[in-house]
Amino acid sequence: MSLDWLSTPCVQPDVAMRDAAAARQQQLTKPPGSLGMLEALAIQLASLQHTSSPAVDRVWISVFAGDHGVADEGVSAFPQVVTGEMVRNFASGGAAISVLARSLGANLEVVNLGTVNDPGEIPGVRRAIIAPSTANFCLGPAMTMAQLEVALAVGAESAQAAKAAGAQLFIGGEMGIANTTSAAALASALLCEPPSSLAGAGTGLDASGIMHKVTVLERALAQHAAATTAFEQLRCLGGFEIAALAGACIAAAQSGIPVLVDGFIATTAALTAVRMHPDVRHWLLFAHRSKEHGHARLLRALDAEPVLDLGLRLGEASGAATAVPVLRLACALHNGMATFEQAGVSTA
Amino acid sequence: MSLDWLSTPCVQPDVAMRDAAAARQQQLTKPPGSLGMLEALAIQLASLQHTSSPAVDRVWISVFAGDHGVADEGVSAFPQVVTGEMVRNFASGGAAISVLARSLGANLEVVNLGTVNDPGEIPGVRRAIIAPSTANFCLGPAMTMAQLEVALAVGAESAQAAKAAGAQLFIGGEMGIANTTSAAALASALLCEPPSSLAGAGTGLDASGIMHKVTVLERALAQHAAATTAFEQLRCLGGFEIAALAGACIAAAQSGIPVLVDGFIATTAALTAVRMHPDVRHWLLFAHRSKEHGHARLLRALDAEPVLDLGLRLGEASGAATAVPVLRLACALHNGMATFEQAGVSTA
Repeated sequence: MSLDWLSTPCVQPDVAMRDAAAARQQQLTKPPGSLGMLEALAIQLASLQHTSSPAVDRVWISVFAGDHGVADEGVSAFPQVVTGEMVRNFASGGAAISVLARSLGANLEVVNLGTVNDPGEIPGVRRAIIAPSTANFCLGPAMTMAQLEVALAVGAESAQAAKAAGAQLFIGGEMGIANTTSAAALASALLCEPPSSLAGAGTGLDASGIMHKVTVLERALAQHAAATTAFEQLRCLGGFEIAALAGACIAAAQSGIPVLVDGFIATTAALTAVRMHPDVRHWLLFAHRSKEHGHARLLRALDAEPVLDLGLRLGEASGAATAVPVLRLACALHNGMATFEQAGVSTA
Repeated sequence: MSLDWLSTPCVQPDVAMRDAAAARQQQLTKPPGSLGMLEALAIQLASLQHTSSPAVDRVWISVFAGDHGVADEGVSAFPQVVTGEMVRNFASGGAAISVLARSLGANLEVVNLGTVNDPGEIPGVRRAIIAPSTANFCLGPAMTMAQLEVALAVGAESAQAAKAAGAQLFIGGEMGIANTTSAAALASALLCEPPSSLAGAGTGLDASGIMHKVTVLERALAQHAAATTAFEQLRCLGGFEIAALAGACIAAAQSGIPVLVDGFIATTAALTAVRMHPDVRHWLLFAHRSKEHGHARLLRALDAEPVLDLGLRLGEASGAATAVPVLRLACALHNGMATFEQAGVSTA
């Protein structure tokens, strides 16, 4: 296993296609700018897809699952056994992302990177088991160097599989009890912000639960104060699924597939990827503003303007999947509307 | 023509179905509340549709077009001839709403209530011509009593046609040069607020254009200060298409079809309908927060929480159409997700 691939250049967005798309938006039969973010999305997709007819008909969704040693600190409202149970639920079609992927006609890949409650071989689940869980990062690094390398590569493989399948959009999701704690720790380290700015209710902590979570995060950050690069911060404070998401973002940008970023955890992974490889940023679209405390801070750090704001806080890529139809309609409008000249409509 | 139908009771939402839907949301495999507004939308639709399996597969969109006498005051960035030109564009498939309706598989009805530039008989356009335009409401009432009665009835016919066609959701849109001026006047009167709170850029006025628009609105409101009921305010300051939208909202509520309200003008019409028949409010869902100044004020007056906030300001029902897939996914999740018990997933 090598990390050389991490420095492979990203595909460059097509500036000429972007400008042509922006010019076309000015000619369509509507007041200029009146379709707001729908115009911006179509223009960005045209630039990233190197086409005058952007499309997100073929969507690839990878959901990465992994358990977290820090769950031992009692930071989640749900028991750790749920991670493995949800892997089964993803595959059997009952989870939110299963329903959404079906509704969208999207390809759903479920990747098990290691759960304490191992559901075993399940049709439709890619087994890429690294360990039953990360280590408790209050006591030591969450991952060994070798584990992090594998987790990043597993994510990259998903993006490459998406590319090979002809996907026009990549979405990464996650499942892992205690992973808002891991993401908050990582985000705190990346942003040099106190944990109280990033810690939230996760699956449903009350105020005292969140206070306890902040205490745990403060211990973890003190423990890993020596980790100053994004790579080391990811290794010490991240999770298998968070590393896979970061690897997927990087590989998607290297493969030339736009990434639609989900909520708090996926955005933490995206920020990590951008810190490791700044050109990745061009390839990121942001699906929604999560209700999880801390997401707003991450979005600001990435100068991100998300598509939706529906008070979601589930993860699993559910927010990103919900935004897909908006992107599809943005493309349909861009490609399908008549120009003033074509329609014989007078201009201002 | 009679106005008796305006007081026909609305269908009552089904409280038992609402409570059952809310209970089901608590049992689905996700942290309670984690799907945010998607949960609320499914619960509201279950209640309105009197079903445990809400759905918005069959969507009816009516776009009402009409010209405004107040265009004579120079309040629009576009010439009045555009209203008729856009009626043709709606029907020929090149307008934003045409593209969106096609993408959604929705039924699109275009209704011409009267344009100065009459496009004549066009396949796919319902002709319900009242007059070439309303009167300039700076000089007198926009509509006669007879004209208002017809306009309300034309809208009601659309909602009834939607019902007869089995539509699960009604959307009303509008087109009419100068109709943000009419809507701002009507909203000012309904809300007893100064025109400067409601007047915006419309299709693209600059700051001095908006100042002129406010002056025109102040003249109009002074002219019609004696109009104190919603009905009279609609007659004096509204437009054919705005009255049709209000009539459609009322008839949809009377027919038991949920209405997804579009932007500034459609929301003004919805507020008018609610003032005329308060039970209509139960039947309204709000699609988006328009960029048009004044829409936020209308949404507050209706205690409305819109689905999208994409900086749209086009009208034509384009924002409502863009929100339809979000409602569809909300229904798919509600109907298709497994419960904790079904999936064998542990609870908190």
